[in-house]
Amino acid sequence: MSVPRAATPGPGGGAVEHESVRGRGLELELGSSTQTSHRLLAYSDALLSIIATVMILPVAHTKIHPDQKLGESVQQLLLAKIAVYLMTFLIVTVAWAAHVRLFQVIELIDDVLALLNLACMMIITFLPYTFSLMASFPEVPFGIFLFSACAVVIGLIQAVIVVYGFYHPHLLNQQIQVSENQNFYKHHILKIILRGPVLCFLAAIFSFFFIPLSYVLLGLVIVFPHLTRFITRCKTKIVGQRDEEEEHHSLETFTFYLSEPLSKERVEAFSDGVYAIVATLLILDICEDNVPDPREVEEKFHGSLLEALSEYGPNYLAYFGSFVTIGLLWFVHHSLFLYVTKATRLMGLLNILSLAFIGGLPLAYQLTSEFAEKSHNEIEAIQVSCVITFFASIFQFAIWTTALLHERETLHPFARYGGKEHAFMFAKLALYPCVSLGAFFLTCLLSEFSTPIFHLMQIIIPFAFLALRIFVRISLTVIKFVMSLSRPKVVLLEEEEACLSPTETLS
Amino acid sequence: MSVPRAATPGPGGGAVEHESVRGRGLELELGSSTQTSHRLLAYSDALLSIIATVMILPVAHTKIHPDQKLGESVQQLLLAKIAVYLMTFLIVTVAWAAHVRLFQVIELIDDVLALLNLACMMIITFLPYTFSLMASFPEVPFGIFLFSACAVVIGLIQAVIVVYGFYHPHLLNQQIQVSENQNFYKHHILKIILRGPVLCFLAAIFSFFFIPLSYVLLGLVIVFPHLTRFITRCKTKIVGQRDEEEEHHSLETFTFYLSEPLSKERVEAFSDGVYAIVATLLILDICEDNVPDPREVEEKFHGSLLEALSEYGPNYLAYFGSFVTIGLLWFVHHSLFLYVTKATRLMGLLNILSLAFIGGLPLAYQLTSEFAEKSHNEIEAIQVSCVITFFASIFQFAIWTTALLHERETLHPFARYGGKEHAFMFAKLALYPCVSLGAFFLTCLLSEFSTPIFHLMQIIIPFAFLALRIFVRISLTVIKFVMSLSRPKVVLLEEEEACLSPTETLS
Repeated sequence: MSVPRAATPGPGGGAVEHESVRGRGLELELGSSTQTSHRLLAYSDALLSIIATVMILPVAHTKIHPDQKLGESVQQLLLAKIAVYLMTFLIVTVAWAAHVRLFQVIELIDDVLALLNLACMMIITFLPYTFSLMASFPEVPFGIFLFSACAVVIGLIQAVIVVYGFYHPHLLNQQIQVSENQNFYKHHILKIILRGPVLCFLAAIFSFFFIPLSYVLLGLVIVFPHLTRFITRCKTKIVGQRDEEEEHHSLETFTFYLSEPLSKERVEAFSDGVYAIVATLLILDICEDNVPDPREVEEKFHGSLLEALSEYGPNYLAYFGSFVTIGLLWFVHHSLFLYVTKATRLMGLLNILSLAFIGGLPLAYQLTSEFAEKSHNEIEAIQVSCVITFFASIFQFAIWTTALLHERETLHPFARYGGKEHAFMFAKLALYPCVSLGAFFLTCLLSEFSTPIFHLMQIIIPFAFLALRIFVRISLTVIKFVMSLSRPKVVLLEEEEACLSPTETLS
Repeated sequence: MSVPRAATPGPGGGAVEHESVRGRGLELELGSSTQTSHRLLAYSDALLSIIATVMILPVAHTKIHPDQKLGESVQQLLLAKIAVYLMTFLIVTVAWAAHVRLFQVIELIDDVLALLNLACMMIITFLPYTFSLMASFPEVPFGIFLFSACAVVIGLIQAVIVVYGFYHPHLLNQQIQVSENQNFYKHHILKIILRGPVLCFLAAIFSFFFIPLSYVLLGLVIVFPHLTRFITRCKTKIVGQRDEEEEHHSLETFTFYLSEPLSKERVEAFSDGVYAIVATLLILDICEDNVPDPREVEEKFHGSLLEALSEYGPNYLAYFGSFVTIGLLWFVHHSLFLYVTKATRLMGLLNILSLAFIGGLPLAYQLTSEFAEKSHNEIEAIQVSCVITFFASIFQFAIWTTALLHERETLHPFARYGGKEHAFMFAKLALYPCVSLGAFFLTCLLSEFSTPIFHLMQIIIPFAFLALRIFVRISLTVIKFVMSLSRPKVVLLEEEEACLSPTETLS
């Protein structure tokens, strides 16, 4: 959004922002209702991330009888629901990815597009309900039919947006506006957008004959983009070169897409939404479950609220422990993306997988707070927490490793091998996988383990981050000192070089 | 966040963004861990807006007995809870405003500040729980004590952030960095930030002696910033001019603050968060209440899910109606802020009041969907909906009127008197107040009114927006035609002038 930026405070950035306003002023003059899409996209990101994550609630609120062993109930009751949650999370993220793609093509909006997009969002927010129906009635075709129907409607609205956009070319990305192959782009984008809905349409039809096939088709929607890419790659490797015309087309598409695989800003916005809503779902649970009944307080605790609340002590500890974990995982994500200059598709996928596990944290909270002080279930609840935290953090670590593979394109010099922040970034990202793995094996060895201790461990970790920085700095100094004894100044010079080049590589 | 912007796609904006990156590249070099605060603020905005709004849930989930008359129950049960919701919403927004002020002073962050901010957020997310305690036990001092204690801790963390920021001056706003009066700024900001917590501290103490006074003190926290400003203004008018030294100080503060009263970007981010979470709370309700029980379906509907779901028909209509209302109110807000170039304090206050009513929409949904087809309660539920919608939209209209009072500073030329979009903006903003007022009086006249019709009306409104644009255009053409008959070309020329000047006035 160009106009608002004029009002943004910024040290020294003021003049630059104004230039940006002037540059985009033209856009506002083109059509009176033409607008930049920045805020519409931020709002859509917020809605989509919340919707994707809110679906953990039916899982987290599954009533487990306290007498049952958690192991069995996890296997029986939760696994099916968790599978559906993961699938739906991934499907919403597919819709989100399509939305990102779509608004990389259409860069300006007008009132009609804004309203169409809101209609699209309305159907997407309805998806969790169809998911709930699917989870409650896995054998009835209607749930899956409704879900698929929604997906088809979403696809159709997005198709209308594309057609409308190409009918008003001044709304399009400049590269496409200038291009002679506008029609090719239009068909290409329509193909990408309608791919998912067509599969969903088939799923809807098959839901009346053979439900498992429908689930397979819905699963296909998720892997399809990656599958086609993988196939294309294999094909290229086997066949060698394709004929010229095809090459030309694909090249053009690739230069357009690969240069901007996923808008990094939107990846961040979507992730922020997930982290924020997960943190908030915790307090929702605590507000609903841990406010004592006035009558009970009167009868059982003789009117002493403090006494009644002290019963919930472990829950508060669980809440703060979980919040700290979410906050720090966000912090790690934030630190990582601060040095990421470009998000490739694989990094986007890994990020989504990480977020899917982040979305599972309310479940971990629910389990650890519910089964506090019930010996056996307690350990398994902690183990589930550890597993969720481990996967959430290990996928973050995987984003980092993937980024390192193409560090010249994807990373800021500070974070590359030998960069100033490289070692610290590594330590930051490795902390949670190590801690959660350690806690997991600890629970395997010990026959009893108390959740309060686990939560206290969670709360202590932020201080570990600060200690880590000091530790990394000391060890780096020691290494440098040792190195400088053997071959003086070479290492230091290399690092200085890396520090001096950020402006060069960024521009 | 400057580094990510390099990866942002933008028509023609690329070169400008790069310059901005170059300009800020220096910041990254200052300290290795120094970062721009953009994403931290976006995340904080998301958390704060969700937390402020989530507090409507205890209100919306108040069980009202179907036999009771809604009128009485509204008066007895809801009013107290609603008052507490509104107060807490406003207190969170006060915390948010302090947060905005704080990070207008501290413009760069490092890891320590990020972690301190997360700690602050953790305590803020805990506020709804203390609010729930207050609502359930209004007579017990502990709830209000806990709430105040949290507020004090938040204030202290923010004070630590300020002290840390001034201890590392490179993190500060450049204007303050350059200024010689850094100490004055520090004390001034600490005063602003600790004002609220001190009042809360007093409230906590008085909660053990005289609870009503505590509530008064908490209420004072909300009006205090506006009160002091009002008093200062009156003083200046009565006394005339103050002595020189004071004048100098206040002038300096004013040039710093008045030039950037509230970061418009953050006002938008906060509003988006509220709109997004409100839209999502609706689907949460529908997911929890409207998924039929598998056993019930088997017994009552002979296994026919479709039949079981058809009972919920009115709920779906209520859902879509409410979503459309929220979506369009967001759309109006979006359209309005597209042409707002600067958000003054009064506009910020009006926006928060509007958002407080937006947060009440889940309650409206709950009432209209719960009391569908129950003659008398039905009408009152619709009336509550109308009142909430009316206030939410009339405050939006008030933002617009306030902006028009200082249109040279606050509005884009297109939206000023005689601007291209002025008439249409007026129509857009006036639509919801008119419609909701009309519906309200209709329910007063008619003895029976059906919620399905009300929700259908809600769903139809988007088309009214499109019709509106056509209508405004036609009527403008007619007016122009009539005017041009009497005094040719004067009006047209004036408008052309207004259209030609946007770049000039923006820079």
